[in-house]
Amino acid sequence: MNLSDYKQEIVSLIQLAFNEDVRTGDVTCNSTIPEDLKGSAKLLLKEDGVIAGLSIIPWIFEVFGVSIDYTLSAEDGKYYAKGTVLGVFTGSVRSLLIVERTLLNFLQRMSGVATTTYEYSKVLENTQTKLLDTRKTIPGFRVLDKYAVHCGGSMNHRFGLWDMILIKDNHIDANGSIEVAIEKAFSYSSGRYKIEVEARTIEDVQKAIATGKVDRIMLDNFTIEQMHEAVLIIPKHIETEVSGGVTIETLSEIASTKVNYISVGALTHSVKALDISFKIV
Amino acid sequence: MNLSDYKQEIVSLIQLAFNEDVRTGDVTCNSTIPEDLKGSAKLLLKEDGVIAGLSIIPWIFEVFGVSIDYTLSAEDGKYYAKGTVLGVFTGSVRSLLIVERTLLNFLQRMSGVATTTYEYSKVLENTQTKLLDTRKTIPGFRVLDKYAVHCGGSMNHRFGLWDMILIKDNHIDANGSIEVAIEKAFSYSSGRYKIEVEARTIEDVQKAIATGKVDRIMLDNFTIEQMHEAVLIIPKHIETEVSGGVTIETLSEIASTKVNYISVGALTHSVKALDISFKIV
Amino acid sequence: MNLSDYKQEIVSLIQLAFNEDVRTGDVTCNSTIPEDLKGSAKLLLKEDGVIAGLSIIPWIFEVFGVSIDYTLSAEDGKYYAKGTVLGVFTGSVRSLLIVERTLLNFLQRMSGVATTTYEYSKVLENTQTKLLDTRKTIPGFRVLDKYAVHCGGSMNHRFGLWDMILIKDNHIDANGSIEVAIEKAFSYSSGRYKIEVEARTIEDVQKAIATGKVDRIMLDNFTIEQMHEAVLIIPKHIETEVSGGVTIETLSEIASTKVNYISVGALTHSVKALDISFKIV
Amino acid sequence: MNLSDYKQEIVSLIQLAFNEDVRTGDVTCNSTIPEDLKGSAKLLLKEDGVIAGLSIIPWIFEVFGVSIDYTLSAEDGKYYAKGTVLGVFTGSVRSLLIVERTLLNFLQRMSGVATTTYEYSKVLENTQTKLLDTRKTIPGFRVLDKYAVHCGGSMNHRFGLWDMILIKDNHIDANGSIEVAIEKAFSYSSGRYKIEVEARTIEDVQKAIATGKVDRIMLDNFTIEQMHEAVLIIPKHIETEVSGGVTIETLSEIASTKVNYISVGALTHSVKALDISFKIV
Amino acid sequence: MNLSDYKQEIVSLIQLAFNEDVRTGDVTCNSTIPEDLKGSAKLLLKEDGVIAGLSIIPWIFEVFGVSIDYTLSAEDGKYYAKGTVLGVFTGSVRSLLIVERTLLNFLQRMSGVATTTYEYSKVLENTQTKLLDTRKTIPGFRVLDKYAVHCGGSMNHRFGLWDMILIKDNHIDANGSIEVAIEKAFSYSSGRYKIEVEARTIEDVQKAIATGKVDRIMLDNFTIEQMHEAVLIIPKHIETEVSGGVTIETLSEIASTKVNYISVGALTHSVKALDISFKIV
Amino acid sequence: MNLSDYKQEIVSLIQLAFNEDVRTGDVTCNSTIPEDLKGSAKLLLKEDGVIAGLSIIPWIFEVFGVSIDYTLSAEDGKYYAKGTVLGVFTGSVRSLLIVERTLLNFLQRMSGVATTTYEYSKVLENTQTKLLDTRKTIPGFRVLDKYAVHCGGSMNHRFGLWDMILIKDNHIDANGSIEVAIEKAFSYSSGRYKIEVEARTIEDVQKAIATGKVDRIMLDNFTIEQMHEAVLIIPKHIETEVSGGVTIETLSEIASTKVNYISVGALTHSVKALDISFKIV
Repeated sequence: MNLSDYKQEIVSLIQLAFNEDVRTGDVTCNSTIPEDLKGSAKLLLKEDGVIAGLSIIPWIFEVFGVSIDYTLSAEDGKYYAKGTVLGVFTGSVRSLLIVERTLLNFLQRMSGVATTTYEYSKVLENTQTKLLDTRKTIPGFRVLDKYAVHCGGSMNHRFGLWDMILIKDNHIDANGSIEVAIEKAFSYSSGRYKIEVEARTIEDVQKAIATGKVDRIMLDNFTIEQMHEAVLIIPKHIETEVSGGVTIETLSEIASTKVNYISVGALTHSVKALDISFKIV
Repeated sequence: MNLSDYKQEIVSLIQLAFNEDVRTGDVTCNSTIPEDLKGSAKLLLKEDGVIAGLSIIPWIFEVFGVSIDYTLSAEDGKYYAKGTVLGVFTGSVRSLLIVERTLLNFLQRMSGVATTTYEYSKVLENTQTKLLDTRKTIPGFRVLDKYAVHCGGSMNHRFGLWDMILIKDNHIDANGSIEVAIEKAFSYSSGRYKIEVEARTIEDVQKAIATGKVDRIMLDNFTIEQMHEAVLIIPKHIETEVSGGVTIETLSEIASTKVNYISVGALTHSVKALDISFKIV
Repeated sequence: MNLSDYKQEIVSLIQLAFNEDVRTGDVTCNSTIPEDLKGSAKLLLKEDGVIAGLSIIPWIFEVFGVSIDYTLSAEDGKYYAKGTVLGVFTGSVRSLLIVERTLLNFLQRMSGVATTTYEYSKVLENTQTKLLDTRKTIPGFRVLDKYAVHCGGSMNHRFGLWDMILIKDNHIDANGSIEVAIEKAFSYSSGRYKIEVEARTIEDVQKAIATGKVDRIMLDNFTIEQMHEAVLIIPKHIETEVSGGVTIETLSEIASTKVNYISVGALTHSVKALDISFKIV
Repeated sequence: MNLSDYKQEIVSLIQLAFNEDVRTGDVTCNSTIPEDLKGSAKLLLKEDGVIAGLSIIPWIFEVFGVSIDYTLSAEDGKYYAKGTVLGVFTGSVRSLLIVERTLLNFLQRMSGVATTTYEYSKVLENTQTKLLDTRKTIPGFRVLDKYAVHCGGSMNHRFGLWDMILIKDNHIDANGSIEVAIEKAFSYSSGRYKIEVEARTIEDVQKAIATGKVDRIMLDNFTIEQMHEAVLIIPKHIETEVSGGVTIETLSEIASTKVNYISVGALTHSVKALDISFKIV
Repeated sequence: MNLSDYKQEIVSLIQLAFNEDVRTGDVTCNSTIPEDLKGSAKLLLKEDGVIAGLSIIPWIFEVFGVSIDYTLSAEDGKYYAKGTVLGVFTGSVRSLLIVERTLLNFLQRMSGVATTTYEYSKVLENTQTKLLDTRKTIPGFRVLDKYAVHCGGSMNHRFGLWDMILIKDNHIDANGSIEVAIEKAFSYSSGRYKIEVEARTIEDVQKAIATGKVDRIMLDNFTIEQMHEAVLIIPKHIETEVSGGVTIETLSEIASTKVNYISVGALTHSVKALDISFKIV
Repeated sequence: MNLSDYKQEIVSLIQLAFNEDVRTGDVTCNSTIPEDLKGSAKLLLKEDGVIAGLSIIPWIFEVFGVSIDYTLSAEDGKYYAKGTVLGVFTGSVRSLLIVERTLLNFLQRMSGVATTTYEYSKVLENTQTKLLDTRKTIPGFRVLDKYAVHCGGSMNHRFGLWDMILIKDNHIDANGSIEVAIEKAFSYSSGRYKIEVEARTIEDVQKAIATGKVDRIMLDNFTIEQMHEAVLIIPKHIETEVSGGVTIETLSEIASTKVNYISVGALTHSVKALDISFKIV
């Protein structure tokens, strides 16, 4: 995944962040720091973890209208130990102080997500099953959360309601039958969209296969036995995904059923920020 | 605090949230749910906690362009038990499904912050000391995080770099002395801004008092004994605030020194989302 | 296809149209037509054809800020004979005159596209092959052109570069082999996007099938014999599309090969506007 | 006419074009073309005609955010033969592929208009009569259509409702008499706007002249004899224009009456795109 | 002149006014005035003068997002005596207080311009000469200043650089001769724009007349004798305007030369605000 | 005060100014001045005064999209004599002519405000009392008016309703007592905002002091004797301000009471533009 494909909306978010923190100016710096005083700052990792967010630093500086030179000694998606200096920044002291808090708020959230994801994905390392995230992200942060998940070593599920058809219980119920819902989705798509359908029973799985029109089947709250059975009957050209109530403890057993994907809300939900500091030196 | 004073920027955030999730439309609903099918949904609390975010529901619906009638049976800032139905929503099934995830993502984050704050502020209930939040918020979410903190029973510290002068170590160092920094801030302010200054020692406290120009003194990483001493020598018309490394366990002892405020980053930092669901019935 | 999914960008286009024609006001109406003079106008079809564009009339009125009541006696996607009154409009004469030209410019272009499409799709009526449009549309008009094509009875190919992966010669050449290109696309997609690949030879077709990772194969400049051969060897769960140099004369023979789709640039390219008038009565 | 006077609105149109085609990114290039692969492309004219649109290429590249070097070997407003290489473009292959279709969609439409206009204006070459366009343009494309007409060798009529007063039948009828309508227009104008009035009869012409307040008279659906008569009685300081039902076949005879202008809707109405290709080499 | 033709840009100005005064909210009202407290206010004229600006009150309320009922007892363009109650306003006290200052700032400026204009135009009352304003207006206030001038009883000169061609000394000098400059302007215009030319001598006047292509001649810094001479030789279908160094004292004598227009910068330049108050009752 | 803290909104105002004057282009320059003709212009002061506004020249040029080189020989906030050349500008003649009027309109207004302020502040030169401006500014011009006041040698009062709490008669009345209003403001503020209260009597002053919660007391329409009395009883850490009906004649006597501030509406109200010209040389 390439963050620059989403530059415009990330910049819009940074603009909100700028506005909420700075508005009409940093009255403390404006009054106490000489405009031409130069300085440096160190970005320091204060606990072990995977870093995410360094890539958006230039956009933060752009939105904040500051001119800061910097050298990074780390990169997104890698694991670093506590104490690592992630980068050194040089510019006017005013500019360093004005970006400090927002920069950290971005990096700490994103690195928190990446580190959590990293822990989950390690469990699946030697299996054929891949981890996926969900849409349970902070509003406005979807792309950054997805990117952080990617940095943590997971693949991304659909980005939103727009990039895949995912037929769930409500859609099926509104149509009386799983086949009718699939048929409508297929016709609407005219081949443009992937179609995934949620199955609540093995019968649902069979019906979905029979339509010949789905690309992936989501096994919703299946027992491990039902997952085994489903994987057996689903043809190779249709993918499988397990979803619902998955924890880091149950990951391994689910992977043993050889499903293609497991999606986990906890990757972006209830995440602890990674401890990072930015200190003028 | 009144959310409608910030409507414009909250709406901008909701627009980002809409855009990231919906973009060119919910391809699943568009294809499988009849445009005129009506339905209802229940907003259900799945664990105990303080609710925050119900007030922005009309703006979410406005941005999403949906017409949904609803009755709330809860309000922001109150504590509810698991199982409480927070509200009932009626409209087209398409509109209910399109807002579901974003609505929950807002409510769960904000109620998570409110509930955490509630737990901290309970500790200070019978003291003269008040809890304050910090600027360690999710970028773009500052106002909503501050509001959620308020719902949880805490007061708010400054909203950003713009609404108070807060002279910290870097500002002091850039001026050689605490007195010079205060003097510059005072002159810039021409009486418009409150001035708070961070003191690292009792001597700093004394110097700050001597200027006659500060409104609040922040006791940064003081020991309990130092706090007692500082509170003794600081005149009544100057407020006191403790900051740095405060946990829920140390709150009580700090309050015993009778400082006016304690500020805590953890209120908006590393917060667990409160479990809430939105189900078509 | 549902135009309201694209309301925002259609409204942006109408705003450009408003701005270019009206800017600081209609100086003729402002000077010669009393502000409160009421009147009516008739929308009249002056040659046979399929109508498209009536659905955006409310948005045109919204952007132009006029309050006009109207009754339509026609609907998008139907064929009408010369002389049909499509609708009657009542409001201030100023408002009728200010929208007249822009309204007609939209309706005539869109109905021109719909009518052309209608003529092509009639040829395929009793075949298993479906007509598709292309991206050869007027810049800014993509959605309206796609909608007009839909009104004319054709299905829509991808809307842009964003909603399907379509691997063409340049993408293949950049990777040295068709298989490598498909592999990269598949991995990037993580199941989110449909993958179509352009084949220039029967060998390309065979290689594409062998990857097990494509959803549709485009037969580019194949002879009728090659099309027959390709259709024979391509498995049912992979779709087929013919593209390149297709005219209304060759449609029928191509359809005889039972390919799933034929895409035709001429539907939105070089279109004659349908003659419609809007007369104050 | 100078396109840069209208840069802002042309850029707005290009932004719509970018958004409709690219949105969240070209998923094919993003997945299959290495970010740093360089290449070149040739812009090739595939049928004879007048080129228009090369001048907006830098703005297209600007909106698309691509960095492409290019050398043009043609310029807007000149006639070239089939086979002419109009320019060579060098940059990353991704950037070439992402702009390809939109670039061609602009150039082909605009060059189509220029070529049509060129054919009409050649007929008037050795006469005193000048060709004018109308407001029958693609919505959002007014300025580009007017520019293309200019490239094809014609003059431009008013750009919209805002830059000239043109009193037509509806305006006259609303005032009961041609004189009253002219009087109102004149008074509103206080000398700021040119006033043209549509005459349906020779009597209308006489009345318009008598007011002493019109700058141009439009002879609407006059016979050739009536045109001759009108031209005779209209004083030199008032211009004359013929409009309505003009075709390329009738141009020459109309010009023989020595009217100053003939306006023709067909210049921007129902135009065939000029065939141009953009090929990676 | 109709203000609603310019609503969009006036609203943009009001938005700037709102933003500069209110930004994140009226902290005094928010803290001290109950949200539901209702009240009334009186708009009171405190010195004699012509009122302008009442027409934009609804837009001010719209931008400020307040719901205030009101009854006006005055209208734009009329002269009132000190002590007149111009209107009564009812709504929440918060909303009345939040609009108070901005409302007055608009009304006082605009009524100041209207009153000044009124005094100038009274001098020309029984003459054939009309007063005109200039482009010497407050930036951003052009349309409102022009409207206020109109309320004060004067006509408006061109609104900007866009709505008339006005050839001044610099344009003439750049072309070597007045005739060349006029010729270029005429050709560019193709009949779309009125052409006025500045004459510095009687010879300039003669040359301008001889071209047969100008609509108005500006007599720049002419003596009264020269004005008489110019008026004599200029044909009726060409208008005349006096400009430069005109004061209220010299108006009358200039008008005696029967020029059509006199333009005066002082109407919008250096204007004393009219005293108006808005008091909660 | 630093104008660049407000760049965004100043640029918005300049955009309004650009739009109102230029819109679709300067039709006179476009037709008569060759695009590549270069020239120079002199900015000349035509009466004595303090200059303000030179600092925004780069932003004006930026918004107007012109490339003009210039050397200034004056700076904002200094007093210059009639005849001073303030700067020399070199660029295309078109660009010089297109910015001329707007540039002068900004400079003349702002320098008018600065010069007026300068005259007032000279009176207070050897006193302990400082001059303040008010919110009686031209809508949209607040920041520029405040800056011009600053250039003229005065301090700035609050910028708007947002940056200080100023409790006036209406706020007090709505609460029944001055103490209640102050209490509410204090609680809302949680230390974030300065609190000023308007006193109408010495009793009000005493009550305000007694609360221990105000930062400044405004003496509204006090007699000189009452001012003396108030200054005597108000403790040092509370500031004093005189407001209401102050003229340049009464300034000196008021200052003799040793109040901290005097605020004067006339600084930005009813200001005469300073005479400045911009001539092509």
